[in-house]
Amino acid sequence: MAHKQKLRAGVFDSGVGGLTVVKSLIEHKLFDEIIYFGDTARVPYGVKDKNTIIRYSLEALEFFKNFDIDIMIAACNSVSAYAIPELKANAPFKVSGVIEPGVLALKNKIPNLDARILILGTRATVGSGKYEKLLKAQGYHNIESLAPSLFVPIVEEGLFSGKVLGTVMDHYLKDITSPDAIILGCTHFPLIADAIHHYFPQATLIHSGEAVVEFLESAYNISHIHQHSSLKLFASENPDKLKEIAQAWLKPACYSS
Amino acid sequence: MAHKQKLRAGVFDSGVGGLTVVKSLIEHKLFDEIIYFGDTARVPYGVKDKNTIIRYSLEALEFFKNFDIDIMIAACNSVSAYAIPELKANAPFKVSGVIEPGVLALKNKIPNLDARILILGTRATVGSGKYEKLLKAQGYHNIESLAPSLFVPIVEEGLFSGKVLGTVMDHYLKDITSPDAIILGCTHFPLIADAIHHYFPQATLIHSGEAVVEFLESAYNISHIHQHSSLKLFASENPDKLKEIAQAWLKPACYSS
Repeated sequence: MAHKQKLRAGVFDSGVGGLTVVKSLIEHKLFDEIIYFGDTARVPYGVKDKNTIIRYSLEALEFFKNFDIDIMIAACNSVSAYAIPELKANAPFKVSGVIEPGVLALKNKIPNLDARILILGTRATVGSGKYEKLLKAQGYHNIESLAPSLFVPIVEEGLFSGKVLGTVMDHYLKDITSPDAIILGCTHFPLIADAIHHYFPQATLIHSGEAVVEFLESAYNISHIHQHSSLKLFASENPDKLKEIAQAWLKPACYSS
Repeated sequence: MAHKQKLRAGVFDSGVGGLTVVKSLIEHKLFDEIIYFGDTARVPYGVKDKNTIIRYSLEALEFFKNFDIDIMIAACNSVSAYAIPELKANAPFKVSGVIEPGVLALKNKIPNLDARILILGTRATVGSGKYEKLLKAQGYHNIESLAPSLFVPIVEEGLFSGKVLGTVMDHYLKDITSPDAIILGCTHFPLIADAIHHYFPQATLIHSGEAVVEFLESAYNISHIHQHSSLKLFASENPDKLKEIAQAWLKPACYSS
């Protein structure tokens, strides 16, 4: 993949959360150009069923066919959990989700197979059992999965700290035995990583964006040769809001639309 | 409308919440048959923009054209806030939202125009200013609007009471001067009506379902002549879940699918 003049990635997410993955791709300068599509008109995917998620993902695939991309990255964990085989079967370019990269990143950081691992994800992601299956295949056996459904709306409400987040974290996490590693299995969760770290200070957090960067470097031999990544943003509704959030989250120097 | 042999309503909602309106329609025996369509694949509408809500509502209208309905009732406040003119312009049957009925129900219960009124709704509903405009046209002037965005996911998480709901209610409501009336401007809010009543015990709560029943009785002269309402349920995803919830919320005697 390193022989083309311009290397392009298409990043797909159910909404704006996938920008946390874009941020890692830009920081590590893996691509010349990133095309982002957020299905903001139909967000969130995490509460939808498998067939709907596959259908919406194939529509996104059609969208990316309009661009000369080298790889489609499903930043959304729910898409990664359910739609990767269908995307791979229909795509004229490479396809990567975030779940396999997340598991490999965890293995690099926590080689001890007795480690207690907590998977935090949406109901769709946790319900798929995909993380659990891949972790077990690696040899891990102390695995717990949890769908703290209120985390996404709390992040969307901008409550990254404070009493509401604290009470909700207690609601979901108070009976959990302190884990050695936590997989942030939803693009929204990196935004409350500080609070999660504060709750379980000894746990290593696995972030999809960093995991995808590691994965692309090793699996596809993509290296940091690019000076600058340009970013094109598309949304199924309210693209201006997506651009606003992108400008706030990403470094302005890396951003062009 | 009382001359046909069978009177049919089409009830449209973004998800399952509109069943709170169906419950009132069934209890008051206004229709022989109710066709319910929940756009569960794209719920929630309350965070979407106006054009998307109109587009999705017109798709629902097309769906209802397959049935010989007499009236389409938009149970969703966000649809009622934005899409009623477009629905009316394109429908071969009558169309009603829940906002005008809600305002008229409030006027019947609280004739004092100096009453302090609190509108609780989704961001889309509150952002539309529709309740406020209609209330002002009636002469009310002490009006406050609030979009407690976490109420919907909390209801969907089944947290109808307890510490999380209490903390979230405090977050949104602690600075609100005790109102005389509260408009439950979202189909999900009747499910936490007890907690809202407990928070503001002296406030009269306005419920969309009851308001729609009053409105149909007076505006369309629909009376309680029907022995039994049959209910047909449709959803854009996971219809089984909708049926489960309907069976739990509605009396089994009134239910057939």
